Amino acid sequence: MVGWPDRRFVDLVGTEFPIVQAPMAGAGGVELCVAAIEGGALGSLPCAMLSPEQVRQQVTEVRGRVSGPLNLNFFCHRMPEQVDDGAWRALLRPYYDEYGVEVGNGGALRLPFDEQMCAVVVELRPEVVSFHFGLPEAELLGRVKRSGAVIVGNATTVDEARWLEDRGADAIIAQGFEAGGHTGRFLGSDPGEAMGLFALLPQVGDAVRIPVIAAGGIGDGRGIAAAMVLGASAVQLGTAYLHAPETRISDTHRQRLTEGGTLFTNLMTGGLARGVRGRLVDELGPLRAEAPPYPLASAALAPIRAAAETRGEYGFGPMWAGQAAPLGEALPAADLTRELAADAVAILHRRG
Amino acid sequence: MVGWPDRRFVDLVGTEFPIVQAPMAGAGGVELCVAAIEGGALGSLPCAMLSPEQVRQQVTEVRGRVSGPLNLNFFCHRMPEQVDDGAWRALLRPYYDEYGVEVGNGGALRLPFDEQMCAVVVELRPEVVSFHFGLPEAELLGRVKRSGAVIVGNATTVDEARWLEDRGADAIIAQGFEAGGHTGRFLGSDPGEAMGLFALLPQVGDAVRIPVIAAGGIGDGRGIAAAMVLGASAVQLGTAYLHAPETRISDTHRQRLTEGGTLFTNLMTGGLARGVRGRLVDELGPLRAEAPPYPLASAALAPIRAAAETRGEYGFGPMWAGQAAPLGEALPAADLTRELAADAVAILHRRG
Repeated sequence: MVGWPDRRFVDLVGTEFPIVQAPMAGAGGVELCVAAIEGGALGSLPCAMLSPEQVRQQVTEVRGRVSGPLNLNFFCHRMPEQVDDGAWRALLRPYYDEYGVEVGNGGALRLPFDEQMCAVVVELRPEVVSFHFGLPEAELLGRVKRSGAVIVGNATTVDEARWLEDRGADAIIAQGFEAGGHTGRFLGSDPGEAMGLFALLPQVGDAVRIPVIAAGGIGDGRGIAAAMVLGASAVQLGTAYLHAPETRISDTHRQRLTEGGTLFTNLMTGGLARGVRGRLVDELGPLRAEAPPYPLASAALAPIRAAAETRGEYGFGPMWAGQAAPLGEALPAADLTRELAADAVAILHRRG
Repeated sequence: MVGWPDRRFVDLVGTEFPIVQAPMAGAGGVELCVAAIEGGALGSLPCAMLSPEQVRQQVTEVRGRVSGPLNLNFFCHRMPEQVDDGAWRALLRPYYDEYGVEVGNGGALRLPFDEQMCAVVVELRPEVVSFHFGLPEAELLGRVKRSGAVIVGNATTVDEARWLEDRGADAIIAQGFEAGGHTGRFLGSDPGEAMGLFALLPQVGDAVRIPVIAAGGIGDGRGIAAAMVLGASAVQLGTAYLHAPETRISDTHRQRLTEGGTLFTNLMTGGLARGVRGRLVDELGPLRAEAPPYPLASAALAPIRAAAETRGEYGFGPMWAGQAAPLGEALPAADLTRELAADAVAILHRRG
């Protein structure tokens, strides 16, 4: 297939299409990653909630099933000191009672990239490593780079894009506020200044020399083509793949994707993330000061979530989705990838 | 000039380019409108803060200086009952003292389109009439339509777009949350669900049959071309024109445009509007519950603003700007219009 106006990203990572399947911790995984690679995208494994051994197992499985460039995604937040989450537990008390569970810590916390994980990455040699919430410390980053991986960072502002380029990123995701899941904002913190992709993408493209990957609000071939026109070398799609049968989400979550309407909430982890409404958001409101800082809020919520899910209720766990969710099509991920690429190329060639 | 992929809007209104100069009450006016028309755009006059007689004078002046389609813009908010703004005045008390002015009502309030204004519009026969915050009541809207004007409504959600089409709009502005000035949201009111243009535009385009005008976050030819790729028949540009010498804004405002960083504030009018920071926003925070509902907050602020501006301080009045502000170029509006159109066409033809 010919016709991509900017081949910098595909030439850098060696994929057929300039499409990155977003990792999506909690929803993505081996099945989605394999299918995305089969379709010609850069497949991603979300590793922030995995142990080093689980990462090794998943990479081995992907490598055994498909050949093609692979991206491993990690988080680089700083873990907060253990905080008093008494106010948060008190707020959740009625749900503990309703579901007959004990207050307690449970569920896998999102953990930052560390020494142990770095050793596994260097051993596994993924073609691409992407980081959310900044970058790991220079020594660890240097080891990943020297292993041959292309380093991808995530920027929500022009300042963050420059910061990432200065510290050695090879490509930058420009994450518009339309994106589902956690906003990767890591410099400054005023959510009121969150930028839409339409304004963010060309400003990031003007500010850095490395390829830019557009993310947030891109739901179909039109969005991919428009991102290219605004200067992107590639796109990262998350919500578009959520509709695919290979993602591990509840039927409730899947159905709500088509209904539209998303908002930022801090109830699920303590960090700001975009998703569809569920019972907890409806009843507490999406933003609560009682929630402890990212990623600690998920711990006290975990027993309630687990009990609710055994009853088929999904309103206590993340149902992340971006603003383009209603544009998605429920196709297998490989077919979806090929269709999105073909649509985008057709649109780019139809112009004029 | 050839090469626009979608000629529905230019054919509907008769402009050379599918570009609407946004009206921008308080910053736009006769000079900007004339220059935009000379450049080939649809020129707009902001009429929400004018008397019917002032509208007549300005239209007469524009018609005497340039020929080409003209848009008159009105607001359709419902005026709130007179409210007790004691808490708001108390919050502003230190500024009354600092500037040595009396608490009082002052300045022109933004008023909704009414019977008297309708009579003047029917008499003046503008080619286009655009409405913000919904549409006027059916009887008034019918009279404007029968005068021959193309009716343009403003939507910030898919539901608003359908509502406007159902009630007789001939074209719809899809206003992304990136846009400077007042968000036109009129159905529902959760600002947490504000949509970015990248996600909003294709969903609005899929939902209605009439032409869609993209607004918000479009700062240069790339943005115009990308909007066309996402399904727009035209674009409305406000902030891009703020840099032009024909706009009436302070040097402070003009300079801050290039610095980036905008947020929604309700301090200036009581309604949510996007702008750059100024002293009042810095000191009170951008969103205050004490501010009375739109448009009443401006009244108590007016004496302070007037006194501050005599000292060359502009932090008590609106400094609206959209998120693409740093992309703008300080060209005369006619030249800017031609350059933007040429850049967009070149980009649209370069694809593939």
